[in-house]
Amino acid sequence: MTRILFYLQDYSHDIWREAIKRVDPSVEFRSFPDWGSPDDGPAYAFVWEPEPGLLARYTNIKAIFSLGAGIDHLTRDPDLPKNVPIIRMGDDGLKEGMAEFVAMSVLMHHRGMPQLMAKQRNRDWGRYFASAAKDVRVGILGYGALGQVSAAALKPFGYDLAAWSRTQKPAEEGITLYHGAENLNEFLARTDILVGLLPSTKETAGLLDFDRLSLLPEGASVINAGRGSLIVLDDLMALLNSGYLRGATLDVFPEEPLPKDHALWGLDNVLITPHIAAITRPDTAAEYVLRNIEKLERDETAENVLDLTRGY
Amino acid sequence: MTRILFYLQDYSHDIWREAIKRVDPSVEFRSFPDWGSPDDGPAYAFVWEPEPGLLARYTNIKAIFSLGAGIDHLTRDPDLPKNVPIIRMGDDGLKEGMAEFVAMSVLMHHRGMPQLMAKQRNRDWGRYFASAAKDVRVGILGYGALGQVSAAALKPFGYDLAAWSRTQKPAEEGITLYHGAENLNEFLARTDILVGLLPSTKETAGLLDFDRLSLLPEGASVINAGRGSLIVLDDLMALLNSGYLRGATLDVFPEEPLPKDHALWGLDNVLITPHIAAITRPDTAAEYVLRNIEKLERDETAENVLDLTRGY
Repeated sequence: MTRILFYLQDYSHDIWREAIKRVDPSVEFRSFPDWGSPDDGPAYAFVWEPEPGLLARYTNIKAIFSLGAGIDHLTRDPDLPKNVPIIRMGDDGLKEGMAEFVAMSVLMHHRGMPQLMAKQRNRDWGRYFASAAKDVRVGILGYGALGQVSAAALKPFGYDLAAWSRTQKPAEEGITLYHGAENLNEFLARTDILVGLLPSTKETAGLLDFDRLSLLPEGASVINAGRGSLIVLDDLMALLNSGYLRGATLDVFPEEPLPKDHALWGLDNVLITPHIAAITRPDTAAEYVLRNIEKLERDETAENVLDLTRGY
Repeated sequence: MTRILFYLQDYSHDIWREAIKRVDPSVEFRSFPDWGSPDDGPAYAFVWEPEPGLLARYTNIKAIFSLGAGIDHLTRDPDLPKNVPIIRMGDDGLKEGMAEFVAMSVLMHHRGMPQLMAKQRNRDWGRYFASAAKDVRVGILGYGALGQVSAAALKPFGYDLAAWSRTQKPAEEGITLYHGAENLNEFLARTDILVGLLPSTKETAGLLDFDRLSLLPEGASVINAGRGSLIVLDDLMALLNSGYLRGATLDVFPEEPLPKDHALWGLDNVLITPHIAAITRPDTAAEYVLRNIEKLERDETAENVLDLTRGY
């Protein structure tokens, strides 16, 4: 019998329990705080933002599944168990959601929607004529699974596409690939609409500061749907307020929820979404978790296991 | 030598002259009001919203090209010359623009953007969890060239797609096709996000009134990027204000610009864009017009010639 210890604050656990049971009715789904005792026998944790120290106390946990693609909500726990595999979410729902959000956001900036919506508030019928997609240079910063599905969603529109990744990826038709720190500046300099999809690591924290954002061409737009730590918000706001950058769509922030008094809320050319770009969907996530528990039970390697040396 | 008589109010004619000259430098491009005399010899009109009666006075006009896909700006002229072919715009830029706008608008309603943007104005971090695309029923009302490119842009996202057209179209994978007045109600009843792409004709004027809009399921959204006459705005507003319909994106209106005092401007769940969904692009339009002038000179039929019996 498979035992799952589930942790999620502020939301009902019912849809998660039902989704798991739909795939395998025999699973024992224990909803926090009813995790029982560590002596109850082997269990798998399936968690989002668990309280620090909690996972260490449950010495019966054989693997930890993150409810999202990000795992910084786990690695910030100083007592995070060592030698227990940590598995990032990789369900199809997450990928589909990100592809939708990135395509939507790129189209919105390409077609001047932030500007048109500001005009709407003033009852202003001011028109905006967009360039042809082939003349719009979109750059995806971070080219893992989510970057790749985002590129695939953008390709049919005919954008001039590029992507940057830490390590080299195999060449691909219809997209120019950059990799490594030494090519980041060149990638930024050719990008009209930047899509941030990097994980939160020591290397990516504050990567997009004033100097790097200034490498983007004048009039560029910035979308961030990866992790909030990527962008130095004060620097981004300075470049938006000066008019050097044209607009931004931000789904992630250094502090979430974004504090009520943050100046970002008031900027006309910024769209703020509450970390909903890619939402783990219970149906596809349940299949993903139970499929990977089976792999672990057969002593196979699970998908998307966290590599602590690279940090994601 | 080819002579073009160009008419467009409020915008510079320079980019149009340059685009035409780039395709064929020998063309004589006459910019209104410098159209010369009807005795100057054969000419082609290339116009948007010409003043009524003007085209009739230029008896040297051999064909009239519309700057946009719509031709109601021509047919409202009681003196519109008979027996002169009228040619709707069909350049690739127009199709690309519509595919972008429809994909963007459907994604925005699917992902709850009108609601999220209203929350942003209140600095409210209220989350919205969207359904999987496969569970969202998108319906394209009008399945000509623009409806078809819009469907093609939506397919990769996995929406549950349908389209309605006046006459039957060949069956196609990945989309359920409805046709004829007798099947319109069934099409509306299965549609969560409706995309209006119908031309302006006697049959389509006021087609979406209170009763027909009420056939959409509760919580449906309405996008109109065809012609403003399709929707009875007061009826749409009543259904938006009652909460029966969830939101709308409107690019076209019975009167354009939409009057400053129109109540629609103030609705939180309505996105208003100033008739920019599909913009004729000078580069692709110049190629289209000159290609069709060549056809006419060879006594061939031009593309997209207006059929006055069906009205588009």
